[in-house]
Amino acid sequence: LAYGFLARVFGVLGRHGVPVDLVATSHSSTAFTVDHNHDLSSVRRALSVFSEVDVLRDVATVTVVGRGMLREPGMDALVFWAIEKTPVYLISQASDVSISFVVDEAMLALLLELRPAVVSFHFGLPPAPWIAALREAGVVTLACATTPAEAARIEDAGVDAIVAQGAEAGGHRGTFAPPYEAGNVGTLALVPQVVDTLTVPVIASGGIADGRGIAAALALGADGVQMGTAFLTCPESAAHEVYRLALVAARDDQTRITSAFSGRPARGLDNRYIRDMAAYGEPLPDFPINNTLTGPLRKASAEAGKQDFMALWAGQAAALSKSLPAAELVETLVAET
Amino acid sequence: LAYGFLARVFGVLGRHGVPVDLVATSHSSTAFTVDHNHDLSSVRRALSVFSEVDVLRDVATVTVVGRGMLREPGMDALVFWAIEKTPVYLISQASDVSISFVVDEAMLALLLELRPAVVSFHFGLPPAPWIAALREAGVVTLACATTPAEAARIEDAGVDAIVAQGAEAGGHRGTFAPPYEAGNVGTLALVPQVVDTLTVPVIASGGIADGRGIAAALALGADGVQMGTAFLTCPESAAHEVYRLALVAARDDQTRITSAFSGRPARGLDNRYIRDMAAYGEPLPDFPINNTLTGPLRKASAEAGKQDFMALWAGQAAALSKSLPAAELVETLVAET
Repeated sequence: LAYGFLARVFGVLGRHGVPVDLVATSHSSTAFTVDHNHDLSSVRRALSVFSEVDVLRDVATVTVVGRGMLREPGMDALVFWAIEKTPVYLISQASDVSISFVVDEAMLALLLELRPAVVSFHFGLPPAPWIAALREAGVVTLACATTPAEAARIEDAGVDAIVAQGAEAGGHRGTFAPPYEAGNVGTLALVPQVVDTLTVPVIASGGIADGRGIAAALALGADGVQMGTAFLTCPESAAHEVYRLALVAARDDQTRITSAFSGRPARGLDNRYIRDMAAYGEPLPDFPINNTLTGPLRKASAEAGKQDFMALWAGQAAALSKSLPAAELVETLVAET
Repeated sequence: LAYGFLARVFGVLGRHGVPVDLVATSHSSTAFTVDHNHDLSSVRRALSVFSEVDVLRDVATVTVVGRGMLREPGMDALVFWAIEKTPVYLISQASDVSISFVVDEAMLALLLELRPAVVSFHFGLPPAPWIAALREAGVVTLACATTPAEAARIEDAGVDAIVAQGAEAGGHRGTFAPPYEAGNVGTLALVPQVVDTLTVPVIASGGIADGRGIAAALALGADGVQMGTAFLTCPESAAHEVYRLALVAARDDQTRITSAFSGRPARGLDNRYIRDMAAYGEPLPDFPINNTLTGPLRKASAEAGKQDFMALWAGQAAALSKSLPAAELVETLVAET
């Protein structure tokens, strides 16, 4: 089935002289790279050719990845145009349907105009002059480190405070210096080693869900904590009901790290999709390509009220979640610490 | 080379009517299982046949694993006989050249006679009546848990106190309820969840190297701590000089979990052997078979003064090690906490 589809796609593209590479096929989705050399009109042309292929006959989604789109500020508009016009999705290599702030000067200009109280970087750092510009504008800057080496790079870049995120954390951790395995350090071991090497404040995160975890983080030398999963079961959270029920029923040994949802390692509650994909030996498309490819599947699973194919991101302390209203949870945490 | 050797081995064994299975070949070593049905003379016969094969021509080591040897108290003597007489090593499936306490009634009798102050179980539990016998003899019993589920099983078995060992810990962690991945919970997330489900005292371990770690563990609800790596660099430790130097130079992001040394997942400092074996896709012999197979390699590496092929077991807080004399380290830990 897939081969027949691919032959037809390459046939159509060949007739129009559009050079593409196949990145990967996954489930019923297919990804192509388009070499556009910073020329948006060539991407637009490639997309229009893709729309000639009756993709929906054989595959659910075609993703076209613009090679070299990283520094292309006009890309967002084109992406939304493409999604609207055709069953062809277009994503950049930097982020899902938007350009990473790390390279998006237009976003920097917006932030300097809006001056939010805090800008926190995850997955890496923008150029040092951008950080300096934000600080001069009165914006407090934070960045996430998962090893002392990453923390030192963040401090050197002039960031105000560091989020030291341990391996217990749910979802996508902020590891940006490869290899990923090096960043798999438990919070209890990570925080004192980051504190010892830095002079800026350290915010502990990963596996902290109640006052005991906060007190422990402070004992390790942290100046504060950041909590994620603990707030997902608050009534104010936008988490889907299926996801919420899974979190409430979670035990600490039920999370797994998987790249199968997004193409980047992330921690979530074990489910059928994670188990099925663990047996699938072939390499997956990189982040965020795979994130887009699995989007419809995750959405359909949630709509069907089934956990099986949802990304149930959760830290290892999910079982300690209290499901209190957020303000009440904060008061409880303060009282417990 | 290996195929020629294997053909010859099976040829010799076939002529003598000895039924064996090949377990795995790894590097220049080979492991066989011998079906002996609790009849030691059949193992002895198989070994004598193995000694007819000129194994040293092609492989460094042949390991013969006696299938069903678990409950065979006379096995140790036979093992030493085999090692002395032939280039063929014999190991049981339960442990390296000895029988696991979990099934060794002779060891229980010895413990009841000697009455040590504490007996601590790792990798599982003996039958409940054995634990009761030890407690009645005035011996304090401990056992290691890496998930709340394991902790509950230990408490149910009547053990006095539980060692809750987080994923930061070095070497072989005590996980005994599969899958192994379920036991990979960070200490900060594990301890409060174990404390919440148990009534017996909880001893925290994994990633604790100084007073900050101890204070954090107590804040999480632990009654005490157990530390390993922190004592390896004490002058009293028997750690090899090469291992000691590696620990002193360690950073927190340099440990990896590998099964390549022993056949069972364990955390150690990254080195050439771990990296080389990570690229080796085929399954390895189970613990402790692979431990015996890699023994000569690890020993030769240490003797050559090279870290490359040594098992440099270390927890993720190794970088916080102080290399103080043990008594001074304990005093420092008390003062810091």
